[in-house]
Amino acid sequence: MSNEGLLVIISAPSGVGKTSLCKEVLKFFPDLRHSVSYTTRAPRPGEKDGLDYQFVSEEKFQEMIDGGMFAEWAEIHGNRYGTAANALKEYLRSGNEVILDLDGQGARQIREEFPNSIYVYILPPSWKELEKRLRSRRTDSNEDIKRRLENAKEELQYAEHYDYIVINDAFNVAVSTLRSIIVAEKCRRKRVLKQVEALFNLSHAG
Amino acid sequence: MSNEGLLVIISAPSGVGKTSLCKEVLKFFPDLRHSVSYTTRAPRPGEKDGLDYQFVSEEKFQEMIDGGMFAEWAEIHGNRYGTAANALKEYLRSGNEVILDLDGQGARQIREEFPNSIYVYILPPSWKELEKRLRSRRTDSNEDIKRRLENAKEELQYAEHYDYIVINDAFNVAVSTLRSIIVAEKCRRKRVLKQVEALFNLSHAG
Repeated sequence: MSNEGLLVIISAPSGVGKTSLCKEVLKFFPDLRHSVSYTTRAPRPGEKDGLDYQFVSEEKFQEMIDGGMFAEWAEIHGNRYGTAANALKEYLRSGNEVILDLDGQGARQIREEFPNSIYVYILPPSWKELEKRLRSRRTDSNEDIKRRLENAKEELQYAEHYDYIVINDAFNVAVSTLRSIIVAEKCRRKRVLKQVEALFNLSHAG
Repeated sequence: MSNEGLLVIISAPSGVGKTSLCKEVLKFFPDLRHSVSYTTRAPRPGEKDGLDYQFVSEEKFQEMIDGGMFAEWAEIHGNRYGTAANALKEYLRSGNEVILDLDGQGARQIREEFPNSIYVYILPPSWKELEKRLRSRRTDSNEDIKRRLENAKEELQYAEHYDYIVINDAFNVAVSTLRSIIVAEKCRRKRVLKQVEALFNLSHAG
């Protein structure tokens, strides 16, 4: 059907461990690249510009919106996040594979432009555990944590629109499951049929 | 959507290594069971009645057809193979998971009765390699091998109707890929959403 590279969209309520999961899974797929989103929020300790996010000013972000540069953008907890469309499309068209983490709103926005993507929703094992994880971060105030938990409840409603649901209970199991989903999707009929047909015509002739 | 267990249908041209693959994959999933088909062919060396196949006479097989006991049956290389429908349905309805290897014709027949199944087609890396594998078996005559290779070419046409295509080049890689497909399918939204909704209502209330 197409030689377009695989685009994997990952969503999760804040605090579930989406970022760590993605980082770990990337190690298994040398051809898989993490798409770096633009954001107006301040870097957290340890976050690097251009690697974790492209950190930009409110003014720059607004310019990018006005210039139609985003496939999707959203405001979350008072900060803006956006995905640059053209670079991503070009990259996929060359057969590259991309993992992209988005909130439910962003994922919904991007679906029409990237209909062949696969959508994976990561859940915490329970609300209690989510709260525990948010508190252990120690970077957010009580107010922040309360807001994140409330947003998480709303965010959870998006899960029913995703192709896969992974519960991040034991981290290594979740990594392995996410990895399996990518391996499986890479041998979906529509992604390999042309290659297989070519292989067997060649082998047959030889 | 349903608590019905997962049914995995595996097909491959004869000689690709489908049986060994299935046996290896079963080790990773304690809840996955290999569905034993009925056949009229003679056991190969090492094959056990009731474990590899239910070996039955032509007469018994015909009785079972007449009694409507098969979800599918087919004649391949002059022997008959069939899958007992009711036992399989009952087993799945109880939430059990089943792996079932069928030829392309059998898989097509069973699809209507088991629409939620997943279909995996295993391919050899090349025709040459397939021929080599058939010859190394040393149980088939030259005539048999020639016939199997010709059937394999016909059988290959079915690949385009399957959900996944796995190339059995390095055995361990193929095992791992097949395993990944099963792991991935087990966290498809439709298979886990109810469980997830229950989990979060409970956790929320507690």
